[in-house]
Amino acid sequence: MKKSLKKITALSLAGMMATACLTPVMAAETTTEETTAPKYIFLFIGDGMSYPQVQSTSYYLGEINNEDSEFPVGEALSFMNFEVAGSAQTFDSTSFCPDSASTATSISTGNKTYSGTINMDTTMTVAYETISEKLKSQKDYKIGVITSVNLNHATPAAFYAHQASRSSYYEIGLELIESGFDYFAGGGLLKPTGSNKDQANLYDLAAEAGYNVVMTQEEAEALTAESGKSIVIGERLADSDSLPYDMDLEEGEWNLAAYVEKGIELLDNENGFFMMCEGGKIDWACHANDAKSSITDTKALSDAVEVAVDFYNEHPDETLILVTGDHETGGLTIGYAGTNYDTFLSNLTNQTVSYAKFDSDYVAGYKENNTSFEDVMTDVTALFGLTAPAEGAETYGTVALTEYEYGLLQAAYEKTMSDSEEELTQAEYVLYGSYEPLTVTITHILNNKSGIDFTSYSHTGLPVPVFAQGVNAEEFAGYYDNTDIFNKLAAMTGVE
Amino acid sequence: MKKSLKKITALSLAGMMATACLTPVMAAETTTEETTAPKYIFLFIGDGMSYPQVQSTSYYLGEINNEDSEFPVGEALSFMNFEVAGSAQTFDSTSFCPDSASTATSISTGNKTYSGTINMDTTMTVAYETISEKLKSQKDYKIGVITSVNLNHATPAAFYAHQASRSSYYEIGLELIESGFDYFAGGGLLKPTGSNKDQANLYDLAAEAGYNVVMTQEEAEALTAESGKSIVIGERLADSDSLPYDMDLEEGEWNLAAYVEKGIELLDNENGFFMMCEGGKIDWACHANDAKSSITDTKALSDAVEVAVDFYNEHPDETLILVTGDHETGGLTIGYAGTNYDTFLSNLTNQTVSYAKFDSDYVAGYKENNTSFEDVMTDVTALFGLTAPAEGAETYGTVALTEYEYGLLQAAYEKTMSDSEEELTQAEYVLYGSYEPLTVTITHILNNKSGIDFTSYSHTGLPVPVFAQGVNAEEFAGYYDNTDIFNKLAAMTGVE
Repeated sequence: MKKSLKKITALSLAGMMATACLTPVMAAETTTEETTAPKYIFLFIGDGMSYPQVQSTSYYLGEINNEDSEFPVGEALSFMNFEVAGSAQTFDSTSFCPDSASTATSISTGNKTYSGTINMDTTMTVAYETISEKLKSQKDYKIGVITSVNLNHATPAAFYAHQASRSSYYEIGLELIESGFDYFAGGGLLKPTGSNKDQANLYDLAAEAGYNVVMTQEEAEALTAESGKSIVIGERLADSDSLPYDMDLEEGEWNLAAYVEKGIELLDNENGFFMMCEGGKIDWACHANDAKSSITDTKALSDAVEVAVDFYNEHPDETLILVTGDHETGGLTIGYAGTNYDTFLSNLTNQTVSYAKFDSDYVAGYKENNTSFEDVMTDVTALFGLTAPAEGAETYGTVALTEYEYGLLQAAYEKTMSDSEEELTQAEYVLYGSYEPLTVTITHILNNKSGIDFTSYSHTGLPVPVFAQGVNAEEFAGYYDNTDIFNKLAAMTGVE
Repeated sequence: MKKSLKKITALSLAGMMATACLTPVMAAETTTEETTAPKYIFLFIGDGMSYPQVQSTSYYLGEINNEDSEFPVGEALSFMNFEVAGSAQTFDSTSFCPDSASTATSISTGNKTYSGTINMDTTMTVAYETISEKLKSQKDYKIGVITSVNLNHATPAAFYAHQASRSSYYEIGLELIESGFDYFAGGGLLKPTGSNKDQANLYDLAAEAGYNVVMTQEEAEALTAESGKSIVIGERLADSDSLPYDMDLEEGEWNLAAYVEKGIELLDNENGFFMMCEGGKIDWACHANDAKSSITDTKALSDAVEVAVDFYNEHPDETLILVTGDHETGGLTIGYAGTNYDTFLSNLTNQTVSYAKFDSDYVAGYKENNTSFEDVMTDVTALFGLTAPAEGAETYGTVALTEYEYGLLQAAYEKTMSDSEEELTQAEYVLYGSYEPLTVTITHILNNKSGIDFTSYSHTGLPVPVFAQGVNAEEFAGYYDNTDIFNKLAAMTGVE
């Protein structure tokens, strides 16, 4: 075994020892070899993104971009070619199916805690310092936090806040301001004046604390390295004040990559920087079992990583890029009982709006206007491709509904229009979860006809990939615990 | 970047270049550094085993072996602590959801081909030489092929046979004999006298060709390094003449680990050896959506790997162990819509027979004797734990059936008993696939009540993990194509 390999082994085993359940194959070897600290660290987190989300996106893009290919072909996402791709287990102190607060706590501090808790221990008395706080205070790195969801949502919060409950949005917002981090960008702050709307506005407080608070794309574009600390909120917000799904973006509107590009411009400095960028709505799409939105937001994350790869190519000896997920969402599978060994991924091209936009821009109106099923079907065909049953079209390879599927859709329409307060039966809950029955049935049917399926509206226990490129990438080669992402970063940067 | 890392990068990029769809992040770097050939190579293939099968087994074992733990805890399988765990894409020339013949062809020869084809190109005119054949003819390695399914089934066949169709069992059997490999062990040969039962018996031909053909455990135990070429068939065969599921083994009956142990004894020699060992019934269990059998057979594979780890610990500088899957089967997820963020994996302890043994030892009798549903339920409770609905037991955390679940079971029982030739409706096909409705409904309900679900009765498009320990393990660190497993092995052993 070569020396460099010994080092990898020693480090990964040391990391494993921290998790009681993992007993090493052999005794850990010690090493005196020093690792170099990466000056520039990018940490991309696809919320809810594990192997199924990555691979389904790769296969979908391969299929639609190689229509004439005789054989199946995938298209590599930017990070799929990274030199290293390890795996991280995601369980937390509550469940094998953890939440984003606890998993981001593990990644940012190296500790397990309860679902719903941000950087506090399981007694809720000890606050953990995050990798980003340590790099700022001990190494003078500039820090950036980007997300496609709200800036005080669980994942971004786990890099600057410490709260027993992820729902303490106002308190998290106060910690965002206190952090003094250099660049925040993403969706709007939830509860900016507190739960009772009686607190000082967080945006005002941020401005008072010296932040540029920027709410238009024009102002965001004008920010430069000399502008100072900045909070950039998307100009046009969508569901729950998040940035729109990538597929719902309008011409010229910033995508996630644009926020990363601006972040690099603002953060680049001689001491180095740490940037966390979350693709937060992969998770939301998978909760709703919307495969197409999961795919397009995963592609958007890949494009954002591409910006970091460009930076890496200019600074290959000083940059580390990590791309991971916090957990899997939805139990997404490339394959479905009804389609056997086939997939028909290009069927998904027919879907041109996210489930959320369909809910807000269409279903709300159906309820108000008591729209007929026939009229609804016209929209369903226009926006998702699904057509009413026709002779000889009873196959999964097309978007023509079978009588059975049409019946499912009609039942879901009736459930949506009834707006009943009645509790769902066990069977209905599995069919609809807490989603709009019509909408989730449309995506279920389109998914299944494409050879895709989901098993859950929640998170699942699948491990997540950890793609690594650049300085010390080899440290991330094994199968380890998500807490080891912090452990490895802390060890190589020398923070305490 | 350190020198050793450059080598890794150059090699994995070279591998990636072979797949047209994967364009590297940066230009490949060349290297003159030599790799050492591992003298002892173990290749374990969990058929149908990907991340969900591995992690569900780890979590299940952690839960049942740590009942008093306040927090969720996993138990690492032997290979989860390997120094490297990369990922391999599995698509073949037919589909993103490939089969075992084509994927094993990729692993053993570095080529993609059609589903169902073994070591032939897509024109069916070119035969590919396998890594095991090359190591035998060019390096004089001894070769072992072990499987828990039939020795002429697709995965083992892909290491010695070359056939347009995996169903050409007799021809595959002839190639097995011709291979001259040193150790074959596993389930019985399918069609040993040909499709029309009019050919010379394969076992006789093997004996004539100089093989010890051994059909009892006592004879197998008596084999030594001096015995010469051997074919060992399990003494007690189960479904389709495969070895029994690990959970159906009787006291003292050889498990997969025992076949590996005997293999090492027979293969160890001064020129080195290559051993392929397949856990073949993880796949069969997942096809049938039998989570418990998937878990226990994955544990059996882990125990078999443990034997190789012991050997590695004695020969750490000469041994390489790889553990991978050929594809995922069943769309297994740790999480289910009905259980949200909870799992109740210890519910699976109630299942004490495989679906296959239940089919053969129970359901066949029900049909013959027209057994009543009440009597069937007595067995279902005894063998799977599921109990008829009772007041206050309507939760997923227990194995008490809800009225809804009881209804599903009753409908499935009636479908099974009717033995109807009628084609299944679209809804029924998703419920039952081609399985016994009663049996698959039992495992579905038990899975779901345990927080587990499946989406398919076929293979899915998930990538598979590639765990690597030992000489050149670092070569397997990235996210690559399954053909690269061959490419890397061929490069490091210097075969052409």
